[in-house]
Amino acid sequence: MKDVGILVLGHGSSLPFNKELVESLAQMIGKNNSSGPVRTAYLNMNQPDIPAGLKSFQGTGVKKIVALPLFLAHGVHTRQDIPHELGVDPEKRRGVLNIWGDEVEVICAEPLGVDECIAALAIKRAEESLE
Amino acid sequence: MKDVGILVLGHGSSLPFNKELVESLAQMIGKNNSSGPVRTAYLNMNQPDIPAGLKSFQGTGVKKIVALPLFLAHGVHTRQDIPHELGVDPEKRRGVLNIWGDEVEVICAEPLGVDECIAALAIKRAEESLE
Repeated sequence: MKDVGILVLGHGSSLPFNKELVESLAQMIGKNNSSGPVRTAYLNMNQPDIPAGLKSFQGTGVKKIVALPLFLAHGVHTRQDIPHELGVDPEKRRGVLNIWGDEVEVICAEPLGVDECIAALAIKRAEESLE
Repeated sequence: MKDVGILVLGHGSSLPFNKELVESLAQMIGKNNSSGPVRTAYLNMNQPDIPAGLKSFQGTGVKKIVALPLFLAHGVHTRQDIPHELGVDPEKRRGVLNIWGDEVEVICAEPLGVDECIAALAIKRAEESLE
């Protein structure tokens, strides 16, 4: 994925914790992945917003951007709001956009979803609360 | 944690996906953990709500319930809304409640938070979107 940008998307919050989490996970994604550039953007309340997040890849040479929602499950945000903010068809969840004078393919990834690692992490949080 | 109930908490959604995710993860938590009973509840839109979720442990004999929020990061929901719905002090994040005529200690666990497993899962979702 070296020629692919990853736009890590957070919900945004009036408190600092969502942005801190998104930035930390984006750093891990950038370090662990053989990807091209990694940027962050927020649906609500924090900056950059999603259009600004897309524009932040200008000059990187990417021809493709994966919008990667750090949401646990699909909902109105991932099905409607994020595709709308990206400017792609909510059914196809992808499209070719002219963002900074070049055509760029933008693809919405699925949310994190059900995985044993999340169940294991949740159990760890439950155990920690009893310490 | 055999004598401890786990109340797995979801955000809730007008679409079915959040509830499906919460129920699936609650099943995994129940299977993988040496815990006592596992129940689910939702902050918004889905049932059971949080007070009903607490009451659903009646008859199980638990003296302690961990409220386990399936949220990625702290925010207004985990800092204020969930403690309020549980009926515990939002600063202490725990309290002794009389739920069904018995005293039960209710403890709010931390949200999932930053972890390498979530970064790895996100990378997997990005890769899948390019297949």
